Amino acid sequence: MIQTKAMRRFVVIGQKATASPDFLLGDIPGTSGRLDVLLRCVRAALLVSHGLRVDTVVYLVLGGGPRAPRTVRIDGASARYVRPDERSLAVAVMKALAVQPAEPPASGFVIARSGIAVCDGGLDAVLTDLGPGALHMLDEHGSDLREARMDITDPVFFVGDHLGFDAETRARLEAAGASSISVGPVSLHAEDAIAVVCNELDRREANAP
Amino acid sequence: MIQTKAMRRFVVIGQKATASPDFLLGDIPGTSGRLDVLLRCVRAALLVSHGLRVDTVVYLVLGGGPRAPRTVRIDGASARYVRPDERSLAVAVMKALAVQPAEPPASGFVIARSGIAVCDGGLDAVLTDLGPGALHMLDEHGSDLREARMDITDPVFFVGDHLGFDAETRARLEAAGASSISVGPVSLHAEDAIAVVCNELDRREANAP
Repeated sequence: MIQTKAMRRFVVIGQKATASPDFLLGDIPGTSGRLDVLLRCVRAALLVSHGLRVDTVVYLVLGGGPRAPRTVRIDGASARYVRPDERSLAVAVMKALAVQPAEPPASGFVIARSGIAVCDGGLDAVLTDLGPGALHMLDEHGSDLREARMDITDPVFFVGDHLGFDAETRARLEAAGASSISVGPVSLHAEDAIAVVCNELDRREANAP
Repeated sequence: MIQTKAMRRFVVIGQKATASPDFLLGDIPGTSGRLDVLLRCVRAALLVSHGLRVDTVVYLVLGGGPRAPRTVRIDGASARYVRPDERSLAVAVMKALAVQPAEPPASGFVIARSGIAVCDGGLDAVLTDLGPGALHMLDEHGSDLREARMDITDPVFFVGDHLGFDAETRARLEAAGASSISVGPVSLHAEDAIAVVCNELDRREANAP
């Protein structure tokens, strides 16, 4: 994607989350490889009281099901009608996953609807799409968030799902230079960790000269 | 309730959230007076990675619909099978709201199932049930959370829904001695504010002598 201004990016890695749209809205946790975990991360990263964070992009890396890996990208600057409830978010992601590009486009990501794009590819496709930016991974053994050196202008945060990062993903991120950051003394749900990171970034931005 | 050990309590005030079980699981936001907002607060307050916070109790004050006000109380110490997704939480609350006590019991709250109780009453019933404890209300104009004086042993936090606190509730809480606390420079969803508060409490507990 073309980046023209300061931007926060969150990359949520769903080890088993489905990359195909054939899950049931009436039983998202049981039929989607726990896509619900990732949907809640979208809300935590993108939505604030009565609005969207227009400076934030969320990637959902979907490692489960026959079409994996695929990635859904949601851009707060251009997304429309993003609602906070899980079912509405699931419908939006389901529609994006139903997109069948005739041929792989050069850029990788295909726009499914305003602000929501999908790509046939996983972490490598995301790293290509990200371009420059300070990479951080949320990890309970990392440096404390409140003390950690972070780029508050264009930070990228990688977040594991309920299964955490697998060894290959962790190695790939470390090789890409990602620093490890811990949000606190208790191991939190991914979406709560994102909420805590956003709060820290909001505070640093508010206090920036 | 009988309190025998340190406990965190969150009271989420749903101005329009339904106090009756006749909402649709397929459209929670559209049929329940935005009960979805309160359900997400339950997850944020009670659930951590692979577990429950056994030291936490959540009250949902339900001010909407013909049976209002009623309150659902969920106790992390005795609740079983609390799942993080909105639909599962909605089913649990729906079942609690379907409880019809034959007569009002002396204690106010009726156990619907292990760890989940319901009461015919709103904020006043909650204040009675709470007993002693330092009262705080989340308010964007309050003292900063990181600097605020808080009892980390038995704190009680009152949280508004997407509509905030109405004037009557605010006056009632101020009269009860609640101090106002702000979680940061950006106005957050109620569940994200709870996640940030929990993180601050986790940190203070970890650093307590």
